Amino acid sequence: MNATDAAFAAVTSAPEASAPALDDTQSRRDDRHLAIQRVGIRALRHPVRVGSVGGEAQSTVATFSMYVGLSEDVKGAHMSRFAQLLEEGLDLLTPASFLELAARMQTRLEAQSSYLEMRFPYFRRKRAPVSGAESLLDADVAFIVDAPLHAAPKFVLEVVAPVTSLCPCSKKISAYGAHNQRSHITMRAQASTDLSIDALIEIAEREASSELYGVLKRVDEKFVTERAYDNPKFVEDLVRDIAIACAAHPHIGEFVVASENFESIHNHSAYAELRGQGKLLSSKSD
Amino acid sequence: MNATDAAFAAVTSAPEASAPALDDTQSRRDDRHLAIQRVGIRALRHPVRVGSVGGEAQSTVATFSMYVGLSEDVKGAHMSRFAQLLEEGLDLLTPASFLELAARMQTRLEAQSSYLEMRFPYFRRKRAPVSGAESLLDADVAFIVDAPLHAAPKFVLEVVAPVTSLCPCSKKISAYGAHNQRSHITMRAQASTDLSIDALIEIAEREASSELYGVLKRVDEKFVTERAYDNPKFVEDLVRDIAIACAAHPHIGEFVVASENFESIHNHSAYAELRGQGKLLSSKSD
Amino acid sequence: MNATDAAFAAVTSAPEASAPALDDTQSRRDDRHLAIQRVGIRALRHPVRVGSVGGEAQSTVATFSMYVGLSEDVKGAHMSRFAQLLEEGLDLLTPASFLELAARMQTRLEAQSSYLEMRFPYFRRKRAPVSGAESLLDADVAFIVDAPLHAAPKFVLEVVAPVTSLCPCSKKISAYGAHNQRSHITMRAQASTDLSIDALIEIAEREASSELYGVLKRVDEKFVTERAYDNPKFVEDLVRDIAIACAAHPHIGEFVVASENFESIHNHSAYAELRGQGKLLSSKSD
Amino acid sequence: MNATDAAFAAVTSAPEASAPALDDTQSRRDDRHLAIQRVGIRALRHPVRVGSVGGEAQSTVATFSMYVGLSEDVKGAHMSRFAQLLEEGLDLLTPASFLELAARMQTRLEAQSSYLEMRFPYFRRKRAPVSGAESLLDADVAFIVDAPLHAAPKFVLEVVAPVTSLCPCSKKISAYGAHNQRSHITMRAQASTDLSIDALIEIAEREASSELYGVLKRVDEKFVTERAYDNPKFVEDLVRDIAIACAAHPHIGEFVVASENFESIHNHSAYAELRGQGKLLSSKSD
Repeated sequence: MNATDAAFAAVTSAPEASAPALDDTQSRRDDRHLAIQRVGIRALRHPVRVGSVGGEAQSTVATFSMYVGLSEDVKGAHMSRFAQLLEEGLDLLTPASFLELAARMQTRLEAQSSYLEMRFPYFRRKRAPVSGAESLLDADVAFIVDAPLHAAPKFVLEVVAPVTSLCPCSKKISAYGAHNQRSHITMRAQASTDLSIDALIEIAEREASSELYGVLKRVDEKFVTERAYDNPKFVEDLVRDIAIACAAHPHIGEFVVASENFESIHNHSAYAELRGQGKLLSSKSD
Repeated sequence: MNATDAAFAAVTSAPEASAPALDDTQSRRDDRHLAIQRVGIRALRHPVRVGSVGGEAQSTVATFSMYVGLSEDVKGAHMSRFAQLLEEGLDLLTPASFLELAARMQTRLEAQSSYLEMRFPYFRRKRAPVSGAESLLDADVAFIVDAPLHAAPKFVLEVVAPVTSLCPCSKKISAYGAHNQRSHITMRAQASTDLSIDALIEIAEREASSELYGVLKRVDEKFVTERAYDNPKFVEDLVRDIAIACAAHPHIGEFVVASENFESIHNHSAYAELRGQGKLLSSKSD
Repeated sequence: MNATDAAFAAVTSAPEASAPALDDTQSRRDDRHLAIQRVGIRALRHPVRVGSVGGEAQSTVATFSMYVGLSEDVKGAHMSRFAQLLEEGLDLLTPASFLELAARMQTRLEAQSSYLEMRFPYFRRKRAPVSGAESLLDADVAFIVDAPLHAAPKFVLEVVAPVTSLCPCSKKISAYGAHNQRSHITMRAQASTDLSIDALIEIAEREASSELYGVLKRVDEKFVTERAYDNPKFVEDLVRDIAIACAAHPHIGEFVVASENFESIHNHSAYAELRGQGKLLSSKSD
Repeated sequence: MNATDAAFAAVTSAPEASAPALDDTQSRRDDRHLAIQRVGIRALRHPVRVGSVGGEAQSTVATFSMYVGLSEDVKGAHMSRFAQLLEEGLDLLTPASFLELAARMQTRLEAQSSYLEMRFPYFRRKRAPVSGAESLLDADVAFIVDAPLHAAPKFVLEVVAPVTSLCPCSKKISAYGAHNQRSHITMRAQASTDLSIDALIEIAEREASSELYGVLKRVDEKFVTERAYDNPKFVEDLVRDIAIACAAHPHIGEFVVASENFESIHNHSAYAELRGQGKLLSSKSD
């Protein structure tokens, strides 16, 4: 039993006294004999405090998707219970406590499977590479718990890290200069609760042509310009180099790495996507 | 061999003389030994003419995603060939000719697998239910060909059909009235090339509380208001009733039906998603 | 001199020691003789704490647009100073302290005019109308300070409040039922720093067919359904009724009220927009 | 009387027999005594054919906003007439015929003022700078007719042209390379019906560090990379240089030029906006 399973076991074994329903349509039997994989609510915004191993807790605003599976003989889900769950007081949401929230949701909805997703902007304090000037840089992050029928719940960490990519071909064939642009690196990884958000984003930043910063002074701008020029990467290089780092990571299981480069010479994007497997095994006991 | 396979076979067997590349970085060997599942371009807009069985051909604007798989020993894809393919003259894009385009793309990129997606607004001429007043109604549609390594290419038709949903609970417990709202029904189905876009959208419209129209006169507004009130549906009902119709359909294989109801009493959506299997078998010979 | 002017005066009179610039292109003269009304940065996300009179301070995430005017003889703005301003530590941002931030920005950029905008999701705790169940409801809010050349800076408060609208025509002509839908009421008002965010949103909610809630129990759903049916409003009624309330408000100056109704019977929106003037005069001294 | 006025005069003088309304709520008097500046529909998608002087007619998909002013004694607008207008058969929409459509809308709605807007993706065939390879490039374009109360209707042409910008500072301070990125140039100009869409977009392209293309071969990529490096522009330079071209243009009246640079070294945009006046006078007679 790993941490994920334990969190679910602790919570889902708790009995819950269900209030007697007056004309409770949703609990009635359904005779169409079709199970529904996901029923619930989405696009619900709620303020949260989030954190992960080694990172500072921070206040942000999350958008939730909250679903449960419905067996074929049940008419419907108790929709108001989803939003209510968020109103009961959310502690700091770390990967571990988010797993507990998912388990609580499944219990409360009297379901055998569930899917909980929370997307939020996440801020890291960075130092400009030469001047040391501090600034925040945002990334889009998601915590996901997928708890399918008859299988252990999986925690998935997703980050969309903005970086710079500089084209090796453009550099090579041009007498001077090279086109470069902002790229979005999406990393979606089955993760242990010990994987930190910052660590995942830093993999993307390390393998990019250059990282981004909120504030850069003149000396820093020189540094990142030259750093990108010294470090050209095709979209294929980006996903391969990041995949190598993910594949060697002890806290990452199955993963997908994608890069979308908003080409500065076209009005469309270059894109690559690579699926792999890290050192975290699904069956790993903690 | 079904129609899908045939289209691919016809095109991918065509030999292609490759121009000698001057310093062709992309064709060089890569020593990281990592295959990439998808490389290509995305967010490319192009005008197209689309059509399907029984529907009228129409001009619209599509957004393309064009990817191929890259084997582990190849450094990169020839990115400019993707956009070039669209410039060579697109005939009317039906499911059948779209399969051919996908096959041509795979051949041109010298790849063993590929994914081609084209999203576009699609317009149907409708008659208001009582007055007969005609108007267009738009839906978002996608043609997708997924041609994985060592497997037959699949054609997938996706539609996002806007409809009205009226809440059965609200109707039942209220002395008068019932909250209702616009809903988006997403249907994503592995399909034979004989499935028409209109037919798929009409399944969603038929099972909704009411359909939408571009123009409604007074008599029509009365009709759709009463029709919705007479025909309340939970989000669970919507996906189950649509799934029953899909499961019985001869031109639909694996499918997913989802409904997002933009609740008029909340600032979030109700959502349900159901996966099923129609009568079209993957292994079916035509 | 009103509060707005005072905040600017207090800050913009502060002298600032400018660091000697090494090769400072931006301070050089420009010979095209064209002033630029707005130069700066946009789409910058930053965590903030916001509040207003009578409302609770809350943590949220804001998206900033920060511009200054550039006179015709100056080559460029010091772009890095904008983001730096946010890094220096933001206190609680109320309308009053936001005016000070705008003034500080103008001073720091050595400009004669400026525009500062901050958009953020804002959450209010509401009680369901019958059960009293508590939940949060989000709205989109913006603080704006427009400080044009040779004119007093204006504080503008903008809210986008989600509500329910129920169609009077549909109710009247139908034997039963009435189409209704979610609507977005946008109110953009020149405001004194005493106008509270909650007060502005509540005007929209009061004049709508019904308000929205995050959590509704069965008894509440009955209440809001009947309330909306008892209180039908055309999009024209919504903006007129809200405008009447704004026109009588002591803390509101020039305003625009708009309503977009996401019609449940069409795939387009009904829309109305009305401009008016409240009791707050531009020249009013505090 | 210029072309704009003539188009309106020709159409708005046409008498229209109004059908007797059965219980026509919208024509009833309103006793709140508040005029509404804009009432109508928005977010309505419709296929169209568009063109302008010197450009090829093309099929695309437009999103319409259609509003009229409502005097203080009228209860409401006849909403269904807006969508109906589009169903009656749209000829090729050029600036001139779009002015006629706007006039027809105002007449049909029995209004004294109106606003008609149509946004659409627009495609131009371009030749790569060295190889001559042809491809389409998209831009977002809008036709707008603003016909306020007691004033001549104005035709406004808006384009959002994607280009490359390369940072002069980065180039100057770095030993090699320079950060560059995609930028969106928005030009919104009061225009005579003789202003072509292509001409307006080409101004933006000419003044940018480089233009974009759908397809570039290796020799072209070298060309645009070096061209951008040879031609660095700050966001301030972009709007000033484009404004100079607009100010000298005989078919442009009041205009706004804005540039948003999606910085490749930051996760936010640099932005500048400049208002000016071309050689087309509002009072000009044709």
